Amino acid sequence: MRVVGSSMLSALKRLSTRKPPTLVSNIRSLSSFGTMSLPERQPFSPDFFFRQLFDGESSTYSYLLADLKNGDAVIIDPVLEQAKRDAQLVKDLGFQLKYAINTHMHADHITGSGWLRKLTGCQTVIAAASGAKADRHLKEGDRIDFGTHVIDTLATPGHTNGCMSYVIKDQGCIFTGDTVLIRGCGRTDFQEGCPRNLYDNVHCKIFTLPENFRIYPAHDYKGQLESSVWEEKRYNPRLTKDIEEFVKIMDTLNLPYPKKIDVSVPANRECGVYDIPKE
Amino acid sequence: MRVVGSSMLSALKRLSTRKPPTLVSNIRSLSSFGTMSLPERQPFSPDFFFRQLFDGESSTYSYLLADLKNGDAVIIDPVLEQAKRDAQLVKDLGFQLKYAINTHMHADHITGSGWLRKLTGCQTVIAAASGAKADRHLKEGDRIDFGTHVIDTLATPGHTNGCMSYVIKDQGCIFTGDTVLIRGCGRTDFQEGCPRNLYDNVHCKIFTLPENFRIYPAHDYKGQLESSVWEEKRYNPRLTKDIEEFVKIMDTLNLPYPKKIDVSVPANRECGVYDIPKE
Repeated sequence: MRVVGSSMLSALKRLSTRKPPTLVSNIRSLSSFGTMSLPERQPFSPDFFFRQLFDGESSTYSYLLADLKNGDAVIIDPVLEQAKRDAQLVKDLGFQLKYAINTHMHADHITGSGWLRKLTGCQTVIAAASGAKADRHLKEGDRIDFGTHVIDTLATPGHTNGCMSYVIKDQGCIFTGDTVLIRGCGRTDFQEGCPRNLYDNVHCKIFTLPENFRIYPAHDYKGQLESSVWEEKRYNPRLTKDIEEFVKIMDTLNLPYPKKIDVSVPANRECGVYDIPKE
Repeated sequence: MRVVGSSMLSALKRLSTRKPPTLVSNIRSLSSFGTMSLPERQPFSPDFFFRQLFDGESSTYSYLLADLKNGDAVIIDPVLEQAKRDAQLVKDLGFQLKYAINTHMHADHITGSGWLRKLTGCQTVIAAASGAKADRHLKEGDRIDFGTHVIDTLATPGHTNGCMSYVIKDQGCIFTGDTVLIRGCGRTDFQEGCPRNLYDNVHCKIFTLPENFRIYPAHDYKGQLESSVWEEKRYNPRLTKDIEEFVKIMDTLNLPYPKKIDVSVPANRECGVYDIPKE
């Protein structure tokens, strides 16, 4: 099992002090609902702006976040083809985009970071372990701030070596990239994929968060937009298995070679800047 | 201009007592952000469950809402092809689905209400003015409750005669169906479409809500998931025009005849029950 740094462990312990609810029963009585099931949500604070965005072609979710007190904003996992839409939204809302942040070096689409950098003057951000170019490279424990809000970073390699999950503790949410998907997870059969790493990181670093934390993934293909730690710990058909069964599942998916990988990975290694449309 | 009932007018006045922010400037200085732009959000309360869902084929958003204290849930604008997904989610979360509610009689997809009724025992709901079958028919001012949460109803005809918008005042949000879309609005050139009605209802009943109210529409085709009263009052390219210009725009859209209207409208008139797959 991958060893988690002691400072990160203590941070995770602080996050995990809430008592988890007991397992939900499929047949429930109304009177027992309060103790049997889904914990109450931690509301977003009034000064925290959250806007999920979608790219239908690659089924990618991007997330525009901002501090409503000073207008500082970040976007997580922007998509090249949507960069103009996203820059327009940033402008409409009067925000100042500080960072375009990637959860990893994507294989299925080209990041919008490079174009957004040109359009808005933001800095591009990705994990150092990704091997991709960016203005700022992250390692676990680094923090990204916008206004009074802070994003904590968790290294969660497994889908790729450079996968990073982003936690906003005060808002009770985590952006998991392709590490945890809704009732699924990223494939581990290309780039530096390793099912054991993915499993360990999810169980040590994500499933130990408070159960009411919202999970926001980089993709969904079934029209599901968000999940929670509570849900994925109970209903994720892969990650609820033991590690050996999980590895067997992941090693026998027999998925086709990703259509866009030969274009996307080289482009994303350069932060998408080679693919900005001329106009 | 359409006359708004006095009880609804006083309810709207109560909702509109907050001072609106001044117009946003496209060129802003950081120090002036707080007074120049987007108002702070009204957070969802911890016991309010909100989950947006998407149907990619028809680009329809559905909304599962629940009271986390007793598990009572409603779904707004479910889609036939997603009824099993939605029923599974309701079951996973331990909720009891009370109502499947439609904002109007859709022309572009078949409602999932009828099938969800079979799968979960919920009641189906739509405006009486729609002319569609349902277990419960609404008129403006009626209220729908689930747990301690209350949905207020605003008749907003214009896209169709039976269009109803649903407001949850305590959570600061409105579900507008096809009446207000993100930077757009529903077309008014088929069924009982009337651009003047749509315009008046939006301006009298929706744009008079507090500006930080979130807007959740029935559709989006550009990967935008939500908006706000503040945004649509400033940036909606149609609804910010004066009424005569708006009518001219809507009368000259020259859109193709809706592909699925001849199947969807008859099916939705029967609440989708004729189209439940046999299995």
